[in-house]
Formats: sequence, C-alpha cells, structure tokens
Amino acid sequence: MSHFLHAHIREIIDLTDDELEILQGFFTKKRFRKRQFLIQEHQPVHEIFLIEKGILKSSIIDNTGKEHILQFAAPNWWISDFAGFFKQETSSLAVECIEDSEVYAVSYEDLNILCSKVPTMERFFRIKSNFGYVALQQRILSLMSKSAKERYEDFIQQYPGFIDHIPKQLIASYLGVSRETLSRLYS
Amino acid sequence: MSHFLHAHIREIIDLTDDELEILQGFFTKKRFRKRQFLIQEHQPVHEIFLIEKGILKSSIIDNTGKEHILQFAAPNWWISDFAGFFKQETSSLAVECIEDSEVYAVSYEDLNILCSKVPTMERFFRIKSNFGYVALQQRILSLMSKSAKERYEDFIQQYPGFIDHIPKQLIASYLGVSRETLSRLYS
Repeated sequence: MSHFLHAHIREIIDLTDDELEILQGFFTKKRFRKRQFLIQEHQPVHEIFLIEKGILKSSIIDNTGKEHILQFAAPNWWISDFAGFFKQETSSLAVECIEDSEVYAVSYEDLNILCSKVPTMERFFRIKSNFGYVALQQRILSLMSKSAKERYEDFIQQYPGFIDHIPKQLIASYLGVSRETLSRLYS
Repeated sequence: MSHFLHAHIREIIDLTDDELEILQGFFTKKRFRKRQFLIQEHQPVHEIFLIEKGILKSSIIDNTGKEHILQFAAPNWWISDFAGFFKQETSSLAVECIEDSEVYAVSYEDLNILCSKVPTMERFFRIKSNFGYVALQQRILSLMSKSAKERYEDFIQQYPGFIDHIPKQLIASYLGVSRETLSRLYS
C-alpha cells in the first residue's frame, strides 16, 4: 500500500485500515516525463491527479497564441482541468509536466463510487475543494487589487521552494507580467 | 418547512423527509436591508449564507481605498467570506446587500454537525464547492486572458438578469474597468 497516499488523506480525515485498503484500489499510479501532457486541450477529461513527485502546470492558450498559467502543482497538490472533470465536458486547459513526475490518478466514475463506498472520502474531497476555492479567491483578489511586486510576493508565499524549479518565463506568465518586469521584481 | 431550502438542496441530492426535517433546524432565516452588511472586514466569520431573495456582493478595499468586487450573488447562490469561514480566520472581504435580501444562514459548527448527522449533505457541499471552484477558475482565466469586452460578455452570461439590478459602477468594479469603459461596452 502507498504510504504517500495514506499520509496525504490522513492529513484531513481518519480512515480505518479497511477503508484505506478499499481506497487504494481506486487510484492508479502513473509516471510522466518532463514536457509530457496529462491533459490536452479540447479532449474529454477523465481523471484528476494527486502529485507524489515532480512539478506540473495547467494553462490556457488565448486567441493570440499567448499562454496563461492558471496553476502550478508540486507534491501533495491536485491538478486537472477541474471544469472539464466536474462538468464532464471537454478540456479548455492543458496540464503538462515541468519536471519528470509521478502522480495518482482517479477517474470521475471511480471518484463517485469511492465516495459511496467510503463516505468519509466525501468529507475529504469537500474540505480539499473548500481550500482550493479559497486559494483561487486569493488569486482573483491578487490579480484585481495588487501590484506586480505584491503578486510576486504572494507567489513566493503560496509556492514556497518552487521558485528555483520553475523557468522564469512560466512564473512571468503566471503573474501576468513580462519576463523583463519579473527580472526587476526578484533582482 | 421551507419549500425554497428543500428545492435548493434537492437540485443536487435526494433527501428523505426525516433528513429534510433535521436539516431545517440548522438554518436560520435572516432579513437584511439594502446597504446592510452581513460581514464586515477584519471580523470573525461565523456563517455562510444561501440567498432566497435579493442581491448581494462580496468585495475588498485595496490600500488606495478602491473597491474590488469578487462576487455578486442572487437567489440560489451562496455568499460569505469563504476564506475566513473555512479557515476560521477574520474576514478580508465585506459582504453587503445591494437590495433588501432574505437569506438562510448556517454556522461553521452547525455545518459540521449537519454533515455528520446527514452524511448526504457532505456530498451536497462537495458538489457545490466543486462548481464554485470551477466558476472562480473561469473568472481567473477571464481576468488573465480576455479583453474588457469579452469579460463583459462573460458577466452577462454568468449573471443573466442581474444587469438591470446592479449599479453600473459596481459592474465596472467587478470587471476591473472604468465606468467610462463599461459605458462603451454596453452602448
């Protein structure tokens, strides 16, 4: 059984050994190399991913061909095209590895079956979703009301330790500033 | 028993009459007048609110004294300072009535007790939170990658029927554009 998976779940809820055994069967371990896509745009979204190793990003390409980064994710974070997944629509985002990565995948059908068989997992995903909601809310307020310098400081705080693992061009895209502006912020 | 409350819950999950009876006891009906605050900044956040009548907004005031609107909410929407509520911290947002409003309030403690007594409600709040997360994600992508005109069109689509009930100055603040820019968009 995966120690990582259990430790991750037990940060939020208590599960019996039997429940952990059931849970294990619903997650599939997958490995991806740097630059591989977990999700490509305009495709059905089958799974959400819990990251054990690596760094990933979700992003959108606008009409002018410019990439906008919605989220970075490192170990213990979840990533997917959540809109596509929860609404069972095709993806508008792409999810791609920034480094070689190992993840646990769970499908839409299995997520619902798991929550029926182990109702405490409903609570786990509710709490995770609540905290995800709060993080996005902070991101919106940051985009609306803060200077580039303050957004950069928020980034350092929200993604501690990421700064040395993510190409500067991607951080600039996440912050919505040019590469040159970013250089001025961290120099 | 409140027909509105039951209809709202039953849009997402099935509950028995007994469960609905239990649920009812956890919600308190409250009435507020236009311009009254449900939540003020820098206060403990005790409750989340389901709106039966009226229109409300949540917003933040930045360091320069400018208001930025995070969310509008109309009947069947939930509103609060969710960061303050879920993390049980003091509020950074204010929640205020744009029109006279009637809401159902549920406290943090009662939400957790309710989910223990009626586990299906855990599922209800998980699904609500998932859809809330997706809506915020769209808002971020809209802020990052779309023109003022496209953001205005997204607003019309996300808040159908709101446009005639919300002062134009507030819509401009939500979109992150000046009052003059907004006039050009809808004329």
